[in-house]
Amino acid sequence: MYSELNTSNRILMGPGPSDAHPRVLKAMSTPLIGHLDPQFVTIMDEVKTMVQDTFITKNHLSFVVSAPGSAGMETCLVNLLEPGDDVIICINGVFGGRMADIAERCGAIVHKVEVAWGTVISPEDIRKVLDKCPKPKLLALVHAETSTGALQPIKEISDLIHNAGGLLMVDAVTSYCGVELRVDDWGIDAIYTGTQKCLSAPPGLSPVSFSDRAVKVLENRKTKVQSWFLDLSLVKNYWGGEKRAYHHTAPVSSIYALRESLRIVLEEGLENRWKRHQRVHEVLKTKLEKLGFRYLVEEQYRLPNLNSVFLPDGNDENVIRSILLNDYNIEVGGGLGAFSGKIWRIGIMGESCTFNHVNMLISALEDMKEFNA
Amino acid sequence: MYSELNTSNRILMGPGPSDAHPRVLKAMSTPLIGHLDPQFVTIMDEVKTMVQDTFITKNHLSFVVSAPGSAGMETCLVNLLEPGDDVIICINGVFGGRMADIAERCGAIVHKVEVAWGTVISPEDIRKVLDKCPKPKLLALVHAETSTGALQPIKEISDLIHNAGGLLMVDAVTSYCGVELRVDDWGIDAIYTGTQKCLSAPPGLSPVSFSDRAVKVLENRKTKVQSWFLDLSLVKNYWGGEKRAYHHTAPVSSIYALRESLRIVLEEGLENRWKRHQRVHEVLKTKLEKLGFRYLVEEQYRLPNLNSVFLPDGNDENVIRSILLNDYNIEVGGGLGAFSGKIWRIGIMGESCTFNHVNMLISALEDMKEFNA
Repeated sequence: MYSELNTSNRILMGPGPSDAHPRVLKAMSTPLIGHLDPQFVTIMDEVKTMVQDTFITKNHLSFVVSAPGSAGMETCLVNLLEPGDDVIICINGVFGGRMADIAERCGAIVHKVEVAWGTVISPEDIRKVLDKCPKPKLLALVHAETSTGALQPIKEISDLIHNAGGLLMVDAVTSYCGVELRVDDWGIDAIYTGTQKCLSAPPGLSPVSFSDRAVKVLENRKTKVQSWFLDLSLVKNYWGGEKRAYHHTAPVSSIYALRESLRIVLEEGLENRWKRHQRVHEVLKTKLEKLGFRYLVEEQYRLPNLNSVFLPDGNDENVIRSILLNDYNIEVGGGLGAFSGKIWRIGIMGESCTFNHVNMLISALEDMKEFNA
Repeated sequence: MYSELNTSNRILMGPGPSDAHPRVLKAMSTPLIGHLDPQFVTIMDEVKTMVQDTFITKNHLSFVVSAPGSAGMETCLVNLLEPGDDVIICINGVFGGRMADIAERCGAIVHKVEVAWGTVISPEDIRKVLDKCPKPKLLALVHAETSTGALQPIKEISDLIHNAGGLLMVDAVTSYCGVELRVDDWGIDAIYTGTQKCLSAPPGLSPVSFSDRAVKVLENRKTKVQSWFLDLSLVKNYWGGEKRAYHHTAPVSSIYALRESLRIVLEEGLENRWKRHQRVHEVLKTKLEKLGFRYLVEEQYRLPNLNSVFLPDGNDENVIRSILLNDYNIEVGGGLGAFSGKIWRIGIMGESCTFNHVNMLISALEDMKEFNA
């Protein structure tokens, strides 16, 4: 038989999940109500409005996919793409690659724009691919590449794809509620995110939003969406519409937690939250560089909330990361893919974005320099 | 701005979610740890073993899909079916219909066995369809139809499909941990369930299990699985295998809750739990029939934990259901599909399966007869 759950009290400074606010944990432990209870319907409506507010959008089709961010990614692609569609996928890390994989599974013709990991896609890169593929249905890019810490400028690329008559789809998993993100102003047609990064809710849900332009594309599909679970023509009636229709059973407790975390974001204010992430990042950066860490990403394209850094020469990243976890209860992330074993990904996201978090990490590293190394 | 979460203290006696044990709610509010933390890997291993124990199987490929039961259904179908495959789908309610819908989206050739809602599929029905479709890849049926309260006998049909060389897939969403279910003994090759029924955990996850026969079919696929998120060739390396590979971010808090609910089931013992559901059902049945309720399903195929009943003549089910919810905080479920507005679905599942639950409901109905009706 198994003992009671007995986890260590971790300080979460990896690529997510981040620390959850006690209010969020408390909300999540509220006794359940039925997913079709009028009180739960009200909660879903409130969450929907708060999702719109945090995406800065008036999109009617804004709701929460009942599964993690990668299911949000799949929701966007399987609904917007049909076999034979031309799609441009921008790849500068793990998550762009994942989008290409899913688009291929949809039977789309994938035109990849690939640049080095840690760099961003330029408008020039897009112009070039549009020369070869002038009428794409969709262009997809990652706003904040969680695998590299690169922040992708969006506005100019948005204009290019719209001028070509296509839709713009954005992965905002790691940027949402941490750095500037304006769905309507930037002309984003489909967006998905996660809950466990700068929102500081537990992982497991994916807020999404679709523009009226995207909705028209959905309505004009010739084929059925290949996924029943993610089919927006069904899910949208569960999350609103004229008559609420049962689709699946919503994850009630996770929605409680999401609601509370969204409340916390809106109490702080989105712009204040963006500023906080930037301010704490500046301090972290100064202290990391003093210790000999080097950033992977060029300064102007650097995510404040996910710091990808090379360790000072001569350190075994895995050994030091283990000491941090075991002796200090501090989690930082290792590298993914090409950067595995080479970089750390230090997250200061949501509730994990405080000066105290920075100081705990830096002091632990200083200790190691003095006592262990 | 929105107020603090403020839900009523409901008594959940619908088709799910059911009441969660305070231990489960408390476990869920445990502060997060990283999903790749060695401590979380241990938790995943423990959950996997407990999933095997509760399914009564030794299947290596047993784990938890990070999304609700209907995603578990889709996981089974998209992984086991390829375009052009012959599949037999048994339909005696909403969920059989849903399986057929998903199988069609997989490009399979669907042979439907349809019987009246509230009845079950007979071996004779299967023999007939096997005459027309002698070499199906898969036969799918629903063990406990949540839309009607019918309990499907499995063993004889299992032999028929295996003799025909096909796999047996079972929906156990509403039977799991509430009525007898033996994956290995009954020769089930693919099974999925939910957490919010007799397990009494919050909704949002789907435990699944695949036999070695099913795994061979997976390994011999000619095409890629159409869903990236549900692709077992990827997910299985996240839940075990020789080297644990990142796939998506597991819903940490929901897994905490699931772990605690599985612990509670194993403490009680599966057979004791089945007996409890039967015993409480007998009392509920006697009391409901005394009040003039009539069961939809013939006695021998009746689910103990989900009681589908016609109200005594002359009652508006919707009015009485609203009084129960608003004045007594008791939720019972209405009918789905063809039975909408005609029946109630009264769940006594997991923590909601007590004599006190029965008495609260029956007494409320007696009150209404005396004071309101």
